[in-house]
Amino acid sequence: MRILVTNDDGIFAEGIYYLAKGLQNIGEVIVAAPNTERSATGHAITIHHPLRVDKVKFFDTTIEAYSINGTPADCVKLATEALLKDRKPDLVVSGINNGPNLGTDVIYSGTVSAAVEAAIMDIPSIAISMGNIHIKEYTDASDFACRMAEKIFHHQSIIDTIININYPTCPKDKIKGVKVTTLGIRKYANTFIERKDPRGNSYYWTSGTVVEMEQNTESDIVALKDNYISITPIHFDLTHFKTFEKIKSWNFEI
Amino acid sequence: MRILVTNDDGIFAEGIYYLAKGLQNIGEVIVAAPNTERSATGHAITIHHPLRVDKVKFFDTTIEAYSINGTPADCVKLATEALLKDRKPDLVVSGINNGPNLGTDVIYSGTVSAAVEAAIMDIPSIAISMGNIHIKEYTDASDFACRMAEKIFHHQSIIDTIININYPTCPKDKIKGVKVTTLGIRKYANTFIERKDPRGNSYYWTSGTVVEMEQNTESDIVALKDNYISITPIHFDLTHFKTFEKIKSWNFEI
Repeated sequence: MRILVTNDDGIFAEGIYYLAKGLQNIGEVIVAAPNTERSATGHAITIHHPLRVDKVKFFDTTIEAYSINGTPADCVKLATEALLKDRKPDLVVSGINNGPNLGTDVIYSGTVSAAVEAAIMDIPSIAISMGNIHIKEYTDASDFACRMAEKIFHHQSIIDTIININYPTCPKDKIKGVKVTTLGIRKYANTFIERKDPRGNSYYWTSGTVVEMEQNTESDIVALKDNYISITPIHFDLTHFKTFEKIKSWNFEI
Repeated sequence: MRILVTNDDGIFAEGIYYLAKGLQNIGEVIVAAPNTERSATGHAITIHHPLRVDKVKFFDTTIEAYSINGTPADCVKLATEALLKDRKPDLVVSGINNGPNLGTDVIYSGTVSAAVEAAIMDIPSIAISMGNIHIKEYTDASDFACRMAEKIFHHQSIIDTIININYPTCPKDKIKGVKVTTLGIRKYANTFIERKDPRGNSYYWTSGTVVEMEQNTESDIVALKDNYISITPIHFDLTHFKTFEKIKSWNFEI
């Protein structure tokens, strides 16, 4: 099994190191990841400047690794279509993200978008994130990603599905189990902080604190809060079939 | 009705001018759009540098207009949560994009992502794009956006739905009608062009030509090709409910 590993925290983040190291136990690993942190880049791709690729030494390993001045989605596209043209990966794994990717937030997530890009190219994929940004013990999550990769290989039928994993950061003996979940709702308050520069002009930082709100009990947010490993199947068909018939009943004229 | 207008081609693109001018006939219009072209930025938001806002003269109009050094999603967020804090828009309209936003491509689209951001904030929204990048006659599409805006207001119940419109660029008397569609599949061939810089190092341009493939007859791609105005209802819940039960049947261990 050939596994392409990427992330949005940048190629020299700790999470991708433990992920790539772990996945070496189950297949051939190639790393292609952004040269700097690219959090919150969503599904952006780079069309206004060209992409540069540097082959780099990946920590203390001999893993084939490429550092790219692009977004996570760029990395997956470029690796698959150019760098590994005759060596198409069997699986793409993105992470381990330093912090959760839950609910509505997945749409902003570079980590998840890299996995979505793989699915668009008919490659099964996993995104994996730590439930908390303050704990950096990645070994258990990496082990879990390996087992998930093997499951995906066993169940070949989910090619259009991205597996989004959020891994709790409590001690392992406190983890209650694994839950297959839906995406919950994340909303933010105080989303911008206004400041003044030395010339008195305003500028705004994107910020925000998560608003506590009622969640579906099946949601990823509830599962993680209750110390479950959350697994959400995701796809990229944004068609809203529920309102499809309703909107058809509207009368449109040219 | 207060309408926030944005785009991804930049605040001084022709499409947003005709859109904002047209929407003035049905409500109060405020423009908040990127200061430069931001195509293919997907749902990226800006967290690594602060956002600057310039109040600008919008062409030959007196429309209140803000130019922002951010992505389309940033513009909608910042306008709604900071600039128009006590004047929340009733509707967000994004466009008119210079070129189509069809099928799988909507996930890369700044135009569509701006509308998705509005929906995340519980504001009804429309994204509108011309079916072809070579024709720049925006008046009819702008008129259609106005009528769609009024429909949305009449049918209050679609708050979680983004209306994605692709408008054909054939002469108006050749337009066959309006179709409510699903998102089709867009795949690309030859997605990267490799070049050498004067020092002999490679760099890669994101490129690609659309691959002709069989489409669902209900898809936006077929409708536009047949000279219909395509309307696709979109949402932002990426949960893949179809595989949810299947994945539940996998046996997971911690």
